Amino acid sequence: MKATVYQGTRDVRLEDVPDPVLREPGDAIVRVVRAAICGSDLWFYRGVTPWEPGERTGHEFIGVVEETGPDVRTLRKGDYVIAPFVSSDGTCEFCRANLQTSCVHMTNWGDDANGGQAEAVRVPYADGTLVKMTPGMEADPRKLASALTLADVMSTGHHGIVSAATAPGATVAVIGDGAVGLCAVLSAARVVGAERVIAIGHNDERLALARAFGATETYNSNRDGVAQEIVESTRGGVTSVVEAVGNQASMDMALELARPGGTVSFVGVPHNVEALPLRPLFVKNVALRGALAPARAYIEPLMAHVMAERIDPSRVFNLHLPLEEVAQGYAAMDERRAVKVMLATGLH
Amino acid sequence: MKATVYQGTRDVRLEDVPDPVLREPGDAIVRVVRAAICGSDLWFYRGVTPWEPGERTGHEFIGVVEETGPDVRTLRKGDYVIAPFVSSDGTCEFCRANLQTSCVHMTNWGDDANGGQAEAVRVPYADGTLVKMTPGMEADPRKLASALTLADVMSTGHHGIVSAATAPGATVAVIGDGAVGLCAVLSAARVVGAERVIAIGHNDERLALARAFGATETYNSNRDGVAQEIVESTRGGVTSVVEAVGNQASMDMALELARPGGTVSFVGVPHNVEALPLRPLFVKNVALRGALAPARAYIEPLMAHVMAERIDPSRVFNLHLPLEEVAQGYAAMDERRAVKVMLATGLH
Repeated sequence: MKATVYQGTRDVRLEDVPDPVLREPGDAIVRVVRAAICGSDLWFYRGVTPWEPGERTGHEFIGVVEETGPDVRTLRKGDYVIAPFVSSDGTCEFCRANLQTSCVHMTNWGDDANGGQAEAVRVPYADGTLVKMTPGMEADPRKLASALTLADVMSTGHHGIVSAATAPGATVAVIGDGAVGLCAVLSAARVVGAERVIAIGHNDERLALARAFGATETYNSNRDGVAQEIVESTRGGVTSVVEAVGNQASMDMALELARPGGTVSFVGVPHNVEALPLRPLFVKNVALRGALAPARAYIEPLMAHVMAERIDPSRVFNLHLPLEEVAQGYAAMDERRAVKVMLATGLH
Repeated sequence: MKATVYQGTRDVRLEDVPDPVLREPGDAIVRVVRAAICGSDLWFYRGVTPWEPGERTGHEFIGVVEETGPDVRTLRKGDYVIAPFVSSDGTCEFCRANLQTSCVHMTNWGDDANGGQAEAVRVPYADGTLVKMTPGMEADPRKLASALTLADVMSTGHHGIVSAATAPGATVAVIGDGAVGLCAVLSAARVVGAERVIAIGHNDERLALARAFGATETYNSNRDGVAQEIVESTRGGVTSVVEAVGNQASMDMALELARPGGTVSFVGVPHNVEALPLRPLFVKNVALRGALAPARAYIEPLMAHVMAERIDPSRVFNLHLPLEEVAQGYAAMDERRAVKVMLATGLH
């Protein structure tokens, strides 16, 4: 089959690799229908996170079950499934607590000659890991694309909102107008029901999409003084803040925006945060919550919102390419020509 | 009257200063009965936090109301009162939310030629700030000393436990065997009712007091490998961790101890934390909550525990001195000869 392989900085290639095979009795083989390129893929693509040439790429995919091991109970050949961005056994303490990213058997697709930007994937603990699509979801291209966002960005944006303790009727600020930030806005406005949703970004086109997703106010932080303006207009800061950029300026802004007693969540591994300002956390009694999303916990409830057409996160994909053009997809994201890229294998 | 004045690094002196007078209609003048020296006082004493010569010292005191302004409704001359370590108006949004440290009229005693290590203090917003002692508390020397801990260290230790989301029956770890860490242990064991209370410190004598306060296990972290031992013995970490030291090693240990999904609170401004490890916060979905204690919120409930003899935090004072010997008290804390010093004015 074909799979995307990292070969060096800014060099990913679709290559011929062996077909995946069942290895453990709980495994499933899934043929990929759609895969996505993640903002976090850019870290290895740009050489910031050191990767070895030969590693497989991609952790966001949806597909069709091709084959199941003898222990798999809930899935059968032909089922359309959504894969969260890590696998999880579904039975450990952390899975039962809906914290599947801390599963004692958690694996990341990039490990072990596996990857989602490919024609097929071996899925460990298939019963615990995969979520069956609601029947009919696969037949609607927009809903199918939305299903792909549940693998990561929509679940991650939603987790940011949940982790920031956002209550219905609340005011929330989302810093970042990338796919995750946009999905956080969508979650706040349409899933949780926040009343005032403040979106902060750098790109007016993306901020327009934030408005379409339910932001009640948008700020382009290329201007100076945005944080102070928001603190003033909220009369003292925002109770729930989602930091969805991961650099020093955005983290500083998040802590500046936080209202005393509030919560800041951050939904990506910060790569350029030199120093976290602990003093405002302390003085304002603010909680900072790192928020690697247990997507597995959110896929089912969010899928219900997609099927009911309350949310349409598919709009974050503004570049659709065939899997063969995966390298162009990476380049488009790297050069910020695309918010997020969807790859189609041609299977559906 | 006499008041303690900062004159330079490791130089505080009891000096003659003008008597405090009522300035605003909500003020009260309180004659000090007992005052304490706080671990955080050592920051200016050692020259780490820059102070100007002439500034008044002390933010922990209890006393007797001497005089009240015309707007004071709940207090009268002769009332025994506990002063939290900051003043608060009692009516703003944050006071009503029991976050009095963020009161819009908050003042710190050290400001404005006022200080608690003195014979008298002008208390702004006296109705909002001061808590009347339960009758009889002043008559029992141990309970009077416990009342003084409620001004700061006992309330701060308790806030650490509350901010770490410690539930009855839970396992909690407290890093630090200073007065605040010891009070956190007492809160966990006797106020909140944690089942397993792990105390970590450097000083075996203080750790023995931690056991007396209800610690079920103590670890001297002068030994290597303590954090790994605790992670193993708890099978994966501790859900609620209180960091009560404020240096890099203790913050690193707190994040290492934290169980996925758990909370780390820190109860002092960290002075020697260079870099906060954000990756474990993120990967483990741990919340970090800075926790400047709204002591005002806790004094009444904790006073009930003192009066019922469920807690006796007075034991953190292992050096009692007359106010005249305040300089010796600072030296004893600086040289770690005392956990915490109580100063008596001779008024009671």
